[in-house]
Amino acid sequence: MSSTLNPARTIAELKELRSLTGDADGAQRVAWTDTWARARAWYREKLAELPVTVETDEAGNIWATLVGASERTLLIGGHLDSVPNGGWLDGSLDVLAGLEVLRRLAAEDTPPVTVRLVDWADEEGARFGRSLFGSSAFSGFMDPEELAELRDKSGTSLPDALAAHGVDLHRAKLAGRQAAGAAAYLELHIEQGPVLESMGLPLGVVIGTFGVERHSITFTGQAAHAGSTPMHSRRDAFAAAAKLGLEIRTIAREHGGVCTVGSCITRPGIVTAVVGECVITLDQRHIEASALAEMLHAAHGAAERFAHEEGCTVAWERIWRIDPIPFHPELIAMGEAAISAVSGSAHRLPSGPLHDAAEVARIGIPTVMLFVQSLRGISHNKIEDTHEEHLALSVRALDRLATATIAWIQG
Amino acid sequence: MSSTLNPARTIAELKELRSLTGDADGAQRVAWTDTWARARAWYREKLAELPVTVETDEAGNIWATLVGASERTLLIGGHLDSVPNGGWLDGSLDVLAGLEVLRRLAAEDTPPVTVRLVDWADEEGARFGRSLFGSSAFSGFMDPEELAELRDKSGTSLPDALAAHGVDLHRAKLAGRQAAGAAAYLELHIEQGPVLESMGLPLGVVIGTFGVERHSITFTGQAAHAGSTPMHSRRDAFAAAAKLGLEIRTIAREHGGVCTVGSCITRPGIVTAVVGECVITLDQRHIEASALAEMLHAAHGAAERFAHEEGCTVAWERIWRIDPIPFHPELIAMGEAAISAVSGSAHRLPSGPLHDAAEVARIGIPTVMLFVQSLRGISHNKIEDTHEEHLALSVRALDRLATATIAWIQG
Repeated sequence: MSSTLNPARTIAELKELRSLTGDADGAQRVAWTDTWARARAWYREKLAELPVTVETDEAGNIWATLVGASERTLLIGGHLDSVPNGGWLDGSLDVLAGLEVLRRLAAEDTPPVTVRLVDWADEEGARFGRSLFGSSAFSGFMDPEELAELRDKSGTSLPDALAAHGVDLHRAKLAGRQAAGAAAYLELHIEQGPVLESMGLPLGVVIGTFGVERHSITFTGQAAHAGSTPMHSRRDAFAAAAKLGLEIRTIAREHGGVCTVGSCITRPGIVTAVVGECVITLDQRHIEASALAEMLHAAHGAAERFAHEEGCTVAWERIWRIDPIPFHPELIAMGEAAISAVSGSAHRLPSGPLHDAAEVARIGIPTVMLFVQSLRGISHNKIEDTHEEHLALSVRALDRLATATIAWIQG
Repeated sequence: MSSTLNPARTIAELKELRSLTGDADGAQRVAWTDTWARARAWYREKLAELPVTVETDEAGNIWATLVGASERTLLIGGHLDSVPNGGWLDGSLDVLAGLEVLRRLAAEDTPPVTVRLVDWADEEGARFGRSLFGSSAFSGFMDPEELAELRDKSGTSLPDALAAHGVDLHRAKLAGRQAAGAAAYLELHIEQGPVLESMGLPLGVVIGTFGVERHSITFTGQAAHAGSTPMHSRRDAFAAAAKLGLEIRTIAREHGGVCTVGSCITRPGIVTAVVGECVITLDQRHIEASALAEMLHAAHGAAERFAHEEGCTVAWERIWRIDPIPFHPELIAMGEAAISAVSGSAHRLPSGPLHDAAEVARIGIPTVMLFVQSLRGISHNKIEDTHEEHLALSVRALDRLATATIAWIQG
């Protein structure tokens, strides 16, 4: 059935795209730039060889449609945009693997359901600091008023940058009409983490995206002279923050999530003074909403305890949060089966980063993702890489999963 | 013998000086400014009422000399300069208490030894970031080449600022000639720390100034995605730094010194990334050189251990160091006796901050300091304060100590 599938062609096309849109510092396909437009023009040439219709929606997402016997539709997606100095696989593997699956299907009889490949616009949010542009317009979770205020480093507003690429911000959410008929969504992505490599596995099936609690935590003690203030008289805000920075690792392990203190700012922040104020950020993620809430509760309790121990006060400010977004259990099982068929064994894992798939899943479209191993777990960097044999396996797994999902949609 | 000593006058003069050179934000007698010059002109008027000769040395220190029967000399010192928005007592108590002692001595017969009161120039270093200007010129530990490079916030060079007050930087070390005949040095200062207040004591005798080891410590791990990097795969530079930040407190307590992490900088320092590099400062102080060396050794060992535990590397860079400067054992005992006589009990304590007295002691002149309690331990702030009855006791204690020291110099 997949006799015409050619994963080697996908790898060749990834390299062709890299040459066309990268430089010595890595991929430069930042959304709403000329280089990104060049990548998409190249992609359109590839689509032009297939019996598909191509349309760009109001959010700038490109849809290639292979009409099937039914209007019920299988979606496959990815994103051609990259961060500045990015890697060659992040997002583009998804699109080009999807292209190869579309080629294979197009070479066969009319498929029983319609199949659409989407290149989401501006997944990374690298230029304006707001990711998942195209997919959140599709899901309806975008707020155009909020986005209208954003500017890039050179001062260009987001609406102006979009207009230069034919997109009207205030019409972008009309992209939601593309969801008509959608019965399932598949996305293949590099893992961008070290889990599969550490387990010696080429592929894994993603059970959903983490819920996230993101806070700024301020401990306030008393700035004091480093020479004249005895240890027992201190109200050291850094000490309280340091204790919490270590405790959140225990909290993460006990609950099976991840917790990170990514930033620490000390005031007055000079060598000769005990820290009077210490501001840290805390990022907590878990695939289960209840466990995420428990981790946050535990961190609150620990922060209060450490503040008390150090004679400090503590204040929390929420930066951002999102609920966990679980993928579809049947599609997860099918993804696992597809991976096992091509590589012998599969692993179920959550996704730490968000993906376009999360936006699709949020509105009830059955969704699953496949992850392929990332070497050293590194992404958003020119040294991002994956073994070519693993890339080939990932294309085969996506193809198998597409076949199974088409059958599942038929019911 | 001290029948004419009038501590109430000292307090009144401190308030007069505060009115003349302070504002709603506190004392503004920053060295090499008009306000400082105004404070010194006011002080010279006070000296003019006494049978003393007044001279300004090449470093801008003002010396008032009461000639005695011998050229062997008792020095009493302090500093009229303040930090911006400073307190009313820091430095000026020393000078004005010394002035009252000089008045009392001048009202009596010719003293058996010469007595000199010095107002050191620019103890605080508030404008150019280099403290102990006048006393380090006196001791010879000043490096004019290094100071010549300093500029204030408005871009004025230190040599230009000094010249505006009649001081030639390259001749400043000729102030060392003032040490001729010096047989002892006394300085009364507010504690600027909470020890005496916590013990319920008005006064203490200072056994010396702390030795200081000051380092910048860089932990290097691996920046990584906060969502996709499992806890056990992390090389978290903040965690290593947090462990050290807590461990130095144990090190300080075990050795009886003080250790402070005053600054923590995280890189990339964003909420979504594990910290790849963390730079902290470490300030360690102890009155004994061997114990200071042991504290540094212990911190080195701990940093290596925590770096290893967290998969990081660690690098140290020395910012500054100074040996402990012990005061004179016989003068310490005499200071203790003077305090006990006026207030019933005395406490021996080291000084965390440096003082002009340390520069004097460095060149072998027998030295001791008296500390008077600071309310809340706060200094370098307009709320700096001391009970007036404690100020009065401190003037009496300095006077008693001066009498005892004159006798001690006579031998």
